[in-house]
Amino acid sequence: MSGYDIVSFGETMLRLTPPGGRRLEEADTFEVHVGGTESNTLACLARLGMRVVWMSALPDNPLGRRVERELRAYGVDTSHVVWAPSSSRLGIFYAEENPPPLGTRVYYDRAGSACAEIDPSQLDLSVVDGSRMLHLTGVTPALGEGARAAFSRLLRRAHERGVSISFDVNYRSKLWSPPEAAAALEEACRLTNILFCTREDAQTLWGFEGDPQDVLWMLSERFGNGRQDRAFVLTLGPDGAAHMRAGTYEWAPALESAGRYRFGSGDAFAAGYLYALLGGHHSQQGLVDREVSPLLVGN
Amino acid sequence: MSGYDIVSFGETMLRLTPPGGRRLEEADTFEVHVGGTESNTLACLARLGMRVVWMSALPDNPLGRRVERELRAYGVDTSHVVWAPSSSRLGIFYAEENPPPLGTRVYYDRAGSACAEIDPSQLDLSVVDGSRMLHLTGVTPALGEGARAAFSRLLRRAHERGVSISFDVNYRSKLWSPPEAAAALEEACRLTNILFCTREDAQTLWGFEGDPQDVLWMLSERFGNGRQDRAFVLTLGPDGAAHMRAGTYEWAPALESAGRYRFGSGDAFAAGYLYALLGGHHSQQGLVDREVSPLLVGN
Amino acid sequence: MSGYDIVSFGETMLRLTPPGGRRLEEADTFEVHVGGTESNTLACLARLGMRVVWMSALPDNPLGRRVERELRAYGVDTSHVVWAPSSSRLGIFYAEENPPPLGTRVYYDRAGSACAEIDPSQLDLSVVDGSRMLHLTGVTPALGEGARAAFSRLLRRAHERGVSISFDVNYRSKLWSPPEAAAALEEACRLTNILFCTREDAQTLWGFEGDPQDVLWMLSERFGNGRQDRAFVLTLGPDGAAHMRAGTYEWAPALESAGRYRFGSGDAFAAGYLYALLGGHHSQQGLVDREVSPLLVGN
Amino acid sequence: MSGYDIVSFGETMLRLTPPGGRRLEEADTFEVHVGGTESNTLACLARLGMRVVWMSALPDNPLGRRVERELRAYGVDTSHVVWAPSSSRLGIFYAEENPPPLGTRVYYDRAGSACAEIDPSQLDLSVVDGSRMLHLTGVTPALGEGARAAFSRLLRRAHERGVSISFDVNYRSKLWSPPEAAAALEEACRLTNILFCTREDAQTLWGFEGDPQDVLWMLSERFGNGRQDRAFVLTLGPDGAAHMRAGTYEWAPALESAGRYRFGSGDAFAAGYLYALLGGHHSQQGLVDREVSPLLVGN
Amino acid sequence: MSGYDIVSFGETMLRLTPPGGRRLEEADTFEVHVGGTESNTLACLARLGMRVVWMSALPDNPLGRRVERELRAYGVDTSHVVWAPSSSRLGIFYAEENPPPLGTRVYYDRAGSACAEIDPSQLDLSVVDGSRMLHLTGVTPALGEGARAAFSRLLRRAHERGVSISFDVNYRSKLWSPPEAAAALEEACRLTNILFCTREDAQTLWGFEGDPQDVLWMLSERFGNGRQDRAFVLTLGPDGAAHMRAGTYEWAPALESAGRYRFGSGDAFAAGYLYALLGGHHSQQGLVDREVSPLLVGN
Amino acid sequence: MSGYDIVSFGETMLRLTPPGGRRLEEADTFEVHVGGTESNTLACLARLGMRVVWMSALPDNPLGRRVERELRAYGVDTSHVVWAPSSSRLGIFYAEENPPPLGTRVYYDRAGSACAEIDPSQLDLSVVDGSRMLHLTGVTPALGEGARAAFSRLLRRAHERGVSISFDVNYRSKLWSPPEAAAALEEACRLTNILFCTREDAQTLWGFEGDPQDVLWMLSERFGNGRQDRAFVLTLGPDGAAHMRAGTYEWAPALESAGRYRFGSGDAFAAGYLYALLGGHHSQQGLVDREVSPLLVGN
Ligand SMILES: Nc1ncnc2c1ncn2[C@@H]1O[C@H](COP(=O)(O)OP(=O)(O)O)[C@@H](O)[C@H]1O
Ligand SMILES: Nc1ncnc2c1ncn2[C@@H]1O[C@H](COP(=O)(O)OP(=O)(O)O)[C@@H](O)[C@H]1O
Ligand SMILES: Nc1ncnc2c1ncn2[C@@H]1O[C@H](COP(=O)(O)OP(=O)(O)O)[C@@H](O)[C@H]1O
Ligand SMILES: Nc1ncnc2c1ncn2[C@@H]1O[C@H](COP(=O)(O)OP(=O)(O)O)[C@@H](O)[C@H]1O
Ligand SMILES: Nc1ncnc2c1ncn2[C@@H]1O[C@H](COP(=O)(O)OP(=O)(O)O)[C@@H](O)[C@H]1O
Ligand SMILES: Nc1ncnc2c1ncn2[C@@H]1O[C@H](COP(=O)(O)OP(=O)(O)O)[C@@H](O)[C@H]1O
Repeated sequence: MSGYDIVSFGETMLRLTPPGGRRLEEADTFEVHVGGTESNTLACLARLGMRVVWMSALPDNPLGRRVERELRAYGVDTSHVVWAPSSSRLGIFYAEENPPPLGTRVYYDRAGSACAEIDPSQLDLSVVDGSRMLHLTGVTPALGEGARAAFSRLLRRAHERGVSISFDVNYRSKLWSPPEAAAALEEACRLTNILFCTREDAQTLWGFEGDPQDVLWMLSERFGNGRQDRAFVLTLGPDGAAHMRAGTYEWAPALESAGRYRFGSGDAFAAGYLYALLGGHHSQQGLVDREVSPLLVGN
Repeated sequence: MSGYDIVSFGETMLRLTPPGGRRLEEADTFEVHVGGTESNTLACLARLGMRVVWMSALPDNPLGRRVERELRAYGVDTSHVVWAPSSSRLGIFYAEENPPPLGTRVYYDRAGSACAEIDPSQLDLSVVDGSRMLHLTGVTPALGEGARAAFSRLLRRAHERGVSISFDVNYRSKLWSPPEAAAALEEACRLTNILFCTREDAQTLWGFEGDPQDVLWMLSERFGNGRQDRAFVLTLGPDGAAHMRAGTYEWAPALESAGRYRFGSGDAFAAGYLYALLGGHHSQQGLVDREVSPLLVGN
Repeated sequence: MSGYDIVSFGETMLRLTPPGGRRLEEADTFEVHVGGTESNTLACLARLGMRVVWMSALPDNPLGRRVERELRAYGVDTSHVVWAPSSSRLGIFYAEENPPPLGTRVYYDRAGSACAEIDPSQLDLSVVDGSRMLHLTGVTPALGEGARAAFSRLLRRAHERGVSISFDVNYRSKLWSPPEAAAALEEACRLTNILFCTREDAQTLWGFEGDPQDVLWMLSERFGNGRQDRAFVLTLGPDGAAHMRAGTYEWAPALESAGRYRFGSGDAFAAGYLYALLGGHHSQQGLVDREVSPLLVGN
Repeated sequence: MSGYDIVSFGETMLRLTPPGGRRLEEADTFEVHVGGTESNTLACLARLGMRVVWMSALPDNPLGRRVERELRAYGVDTSHVVWAPSSSRLGIFYAEENPPPLGTRVYYDRAGSACAEIDPSQLDLSVVDGSRMLHLTGVTPALGEGARAAFSRLLRRAHERGVSISFDVNYRSKLWSPPEAAAALEEACRLTNILFCTREDAQTLWGFEGDPQDVLWMLSERFGNGRQDRAFVLTLGPDGAAHMRAGTYEWAPALESAGRYRFGSGDAFAAGYLYALLGGHHSQQGLVDREVSPLLVGN
Repeated sequence: MSGYDIVSFGETMLRLTPPGGRRLEEADTFEVHVGGTESNTLACLARLGMRVVWMSALPDNPLGRRVERELRAYGVDTSHVVWAPSSSRLGIFYAEENPPPLGTRVYYDRAGSACAEIDPSQLDLSVVDGSRMLHLTGVTPALGEGARAAFSRLLRRAHERGVSISFDVNYRSKLWSPPEAAAALEEACRLTNILFCTREDAQTLWGFEGDPQDVLWMLSERFGNGRQDRAFVLTLGPDGAAHMRAGTYEWAPALESAGRYRFGSGDAFAAGYLYALLGGHHSQQGLVDREVSPLLVGN
Repeated sequence: MSGYDIVSFGETMLRLTPPGGRRLEEADTFEVHVGGTESNTLACLARLGMRVVWMSALPDNPLGRRVERELRAYGVDTSHVVWAPSSSRLGIFYAEENPPPLGTRVYYDRAGSACAEIDPSQLDLSVVDGSRMLHLTGVTPALGEGARAAFSRLLRRAHERGVSISFDVNYRSKLWSPPEAAAALEEACRLTNILFCTREDAQTLWGFEGDPQDVLWMLSERFGNGRQDRAFVLTLGPDGAAHMRAGTYEWAPALESAGRYRFGSGDAFAAGYLYALLGGHHSQQGLVDREVSPLLVGN
């Protein structure tokens, strides 16, 4: 029995950003950050006092260890990371923060990372068994065969052992097409106890449009199997978020937050929601707890 | 007729280094440098006033344009670069400068770069035709099929058109084995007019050992085809350099230089040598002109 | 035949700015930028793919070479720069970016620069001959005798050879008085094919006031010689820009742009306008192409 | 049963250092480091794969959390830290790195820290019970009454439960006088299984002088109680280290190491020694393992 | 006769702030600033050309000398500072500048500073004698016994010698309770010629609420002793400031100023006011001169 | 009676240096330092507790005020600075610190500075009257007519009033030729009580060569007028320094000092010497006091 509150699996990358709004073309230095949707969520939850463990593969070199260091600093358990050879690669992305009209621009260089090419047989699936919840996102199966197999195995393990499942759709258009994604994420959407989805993704993947309430109804029709114990959560960017749970629809406005915390706002939202659920405040106050601000994850 | 003094082709990467001797595991920022053996040599030559052109493939995104900017800043002509899709990648390497006993440590992440995967049919071979010299290195054919094909085509084009060829062996043990390298570089070694080789590479690739004079003799036996118009140059690190030309052996000591100019000292040496040759000082003063200091490339 | 799209001549300086909004009195470091109205415009045009050449004089020392490097990085041809003795000086200006109410404050230290004191006989006037356009500004003749003579010679050469002339009035009150400027710029205003002027300068130099249309009409009356092939462009700061061409008046609003791109917004505007003209989009969409954002010049 | 390899207790402070060898009087910024002799040793041991836990008190504010973050990043367990009120203080020290003749200068500001004033009843002594070793240093009882009481309780708990004890004398002349220290450390010196002491401290506290072998003999006479299972280790700065164990004397030279790793070299030495002992390499190779370099502790 | 315009006494601390809005928990560097309410006011006045002297105690180490340097740089006379032993401490405070909703957060670590524990007998009270005005604030008596005694002695000396007294209430809730403060500041409020108070402090200490005019009336009733030569000034944050002098009430709006100059805006206000008074513009234009911008104190 | 220990007059400039050994051609930032031989010497003396005043002219803009701030921070009195118009210029020099073989390279841009062009009638010569010593250097008369006249007036004033004179030859080959300098400095050399000269300058200006003792003898023959109350000091770089005073010759070795304190080592030497003389330690220990380290001036 591992005794974790939440287990997650996913890729975490280096984010390289020129300081002070400089351009990638010209900057003499890059700021180095560590980020990945699952580990962002876990870091928020660890700060809130939850026992969380992050599974993934990292290159056994200073770049991989850097990721480990950063997550450990937040209190995320990294003892189940799979260490890939030193010559394997850590995904990176370059982010340039321009004033309007250009805005923030992101350039990914993540193909073939240690996580994407993980040997799924090296994962210790038993970590799931004693945990309260498994959290996955739709980024993982888009990364490559290894990651997709790891995703599947974890999903099924949790399902078999009756561990609660949280799934954030997180469609990434640079990695695959909507039909590919919709097919690959079908099982996860069906097995999950809590499904997070942005309004845009609901439209892109399944063509669900309309009022938040309508979209949530379509999601629950499509993936709910008529079970009442499922929660469907729709995030609406600056318009806040809504959910459908136990037959009830609720909406809550967005927190005012400063623009620079762009990276990870959805991840922090998920963390707040899960915290509220697992922490015992899971009745109708669920959405209120979303106010675990992205600011907590900081930068 | 392009009218360049020197044409070269090769990969140029970003080098990311923590400032002030910090560790990759911990640094909050990385310094960003641009480097590649061929473009280093060209940058030196451009500073000395030569007309030089660098051919390669770069991703059509800010990272590729950054490389272009940097080379143009030195006066290297980049108008024949092949621009690969924005989603292609720029090779990078991370370098950490530790005090002894750790020393400088380098982690490559260059597989699958735009240059390695260049479509050789996009190269404008006619650039070679009107130039005085083509300079290649043994790194290029190790990068991948595209780069190897580009290397071959340029080599043959120069040979066919009677353009002088300079070749720097530059064996890279992280990219291939000695027998693979020896086989792949055979043709270049035979066709070249000036062959640069370090003492270590001569031993690793062909087992040539002994006094510089002996090693040079072995090189010229093996690759010289009995022609007198070939120069064989052996670099000896802190022990300087030696060459065999027109049947004559010469040696010259190394310049005192400061330790931090580690990256590119061999490249600068080649630049100085070629400058001396092409600039008309090519008689016995050849080695003297090697004193084009690595400092010129600087950082 | 040089084959350039645009030739320009002018002074380029170092701009020294304390980082992070600090004060000149206190900052421990200054950021180093390179700027000059003509070279700003050329850099924009080079980024848009035009073949451009910048003529000027620079001290033959690291500061002069720094300017050359920076312009070459943008793709501006610097091969016709006149290199003045190492002991000559590069103009500098100190700029301090304060929050309101102080705002940005600029302190010039440019008197006696290599460009101001250029020996005009060293300029290669034939560069103008094969080019499509010569671009000059009213800053140049204010700098000193050498620069004024160079300005005149280039202007006349273009006129004699039938090369199109673009002229940006750019009155600099710290360098001369309105009557001095009006007298010195008279010839340029008369010979130019495209005249750029801010609303303020039109008032300061010639007392032209009123609606943009009225001011443009006064400018064309005064300098147009009744020829229909002249364009008069009036920039209006946040109110956009207007022009009078082939008897037609047009106005276009300003792009929303971030405040920090203060340096060079007029220069970028001129670049966009010229690009549209020379690029063949010169019919009524001329002003639209002004949307070549100041952002392109970067910082 | 806590299952830790090593438990330690001690104060950890912020170290504030002007960058680039600047002076405290003038620097505009300070670099922020986290350091304390016990946590340095634990960080080394965690990097070597040991399970280690650091006990202490920290202010429940961002400065205390910063210390926690940093130690967690190295893999040190901080779950038994006592959190003092937000208004309590974190000890700091200012360190200025001058070239000779000034050298490094340190200014402490640590009086009244949360750790010095810890309420010892808040410590969970049971953490000691299931661990393999307790590591303490002579800094702790010098800090204040709270820290001294915590030190005593932990020492006795380990003794009672038969947990092995490691003690590093680490005399701090700015905190107390030699007689005070000698008295306060007497019990620890008698109960310890491994005693670390520098040659200087042996002289200052007990007047033991002479050859390393003599000094070790005096230490073992004074504190060894005739038991053979005790190790006495004497560090000799650049002259290496020596120990007396099971009646045997051994000496080993110092590793060449770069000067800037001054902070924590003794701590890293202790880590290497303990690692060798606990890791099963504890026979005669003990001193060899000291080659766990100070570099591991990093900066 | 010292001939100063203004004498002041108070504590000045180091302010440590992570750059670029980073968090204290994570920043690798802190910016170092020097600040204290009295010395801020003096620095403004010195910049305006007044002869000012700052009295206090500083540790005789680089941190104390740093404070001295900084104040001297502004032209503040520091020749009457009392130099405490090198081991005494300089108060510090950590300030973290977050975007909303967190806002700026400040953590004080000032207890037991050299100034708080000054030996008042070391103060040269005669400095007051020949000066035009003594300026004190309500922070000082909250710091500790030494500071409180110094405060009293200076206050009485000025009163005895007929030197004009300026007093800024500046209640600090982290240092003492409202009743303690009200009692300790009573004498100063009665003896002062110019009393500065924020609306909040008037309410917290004495329960004075209502319109600015009402509050000023209550202040003058309570502390004015019916004398007409007293000025009572009420600052209203973004709502400007008001005063009651010679029976007349006046109000003036706040200057627009940029948010980042938060530290010291009240201090700069006091400086402007005193400057106007002492500089001879003290008739009804008093409040106008408040426009000595906080920007002058800079950062 | 001004009551200063030492009065000096000279130019102080901004020194702009790329950080971390970068090149002027490439660095994105420059470090900003303030330096001038006379003010360096005064800063050392002020740190040693002497009352010193620096006379000069500065532009009345942020750059001039920056110089004032920096000197005041060291305790140098700047109240007699002549403030030139805001548009006048502050001399600057660019210094690039390369590793060997390039070494440190300096590029001056000081012509026409406010100090060089000072109106000597604005100088308050009476400052000299009550002081113990006037310190001048041979840089000043090389700067321009204004500075040369100021130099002369001060020299004569001190001579007339019987104020002791210290003169440091400090020949600057970039400003004038040896014969020009020798002529212009003749009077100062004759009137001075203490003459500082480097071995190189003695040779360059007057052809004095040989042992330090011989050179000192030639200097005293040439300029001593047979008076015994004159001191002649010869600095020998790494070989230390020697002097001839009251008929006695003495030599002292150089202090070991770190290489980076290159700027101002001669200035610090002069400060130490003068301090020893004026401080009453002026008997035979004179040279010993030279050990006021260049480090004091810091950087
Ligand atoms: N512009 C915004 N203003 C305020 N809150 C926002 C904004 N954008 C996102 N959020 C908050 O973050 C949550 C998740 O937003 P989402 O668009 O799903 O983020 P992501 O793209 O990072 O997944 C929203 O429900 C809202 O609470
Ligand atoms: N340690 C050194 N000291 C001085 N010169 C050196 C040193 N290392 C290299 N060089 C110079 O650089 C040249 C090339 O050295 P080489 O070892 O071939 O460099 P690389 O590994 O960069 O190809 C040598 O001939 C010598 O002139
Ligand atoms: N405050 C502003 N907001 C938006 N666009 C502006 C602003 N100021 C300038 N511009 C744009 O830049 C162009 C040139 O402005 P101008 O005032 O002539 O600049 P400059 O002073 O740099 O020569 C304008 O036509 C407009 O397009
Ligand atoms: N100058 C040095 N050169 C090499 N090794 C050293 C040096 N100083 C310390 N060490 C290493 O660190 C160990 C501990 O040194 P010590 O003086 O006890 O350090 P500390 O003062 O940090 O407690 C020594 O045994 C040696 O291995
Ligand atoms: N938000 C603000 N906007 C504009 N001016 C302000 C603001 N806050 C303070 N000020 C100015 O500073 C003066 C002093 O404000 P106060 O709140 O007393 O500052 P402090 O808290 O620093 O003592 C006010 O009278 C006003 O002139
Ligand atoms: N390389 C050096 N090593 C040690 N001391 C030096 C060195 N160079 C200068 N000094 C010290 O500085 C003094 C002045 O040196 P000098 O060469 O006159 O300096 P400057 O060129 O700055 O005027 C010397 O007498 C010596 O004490």
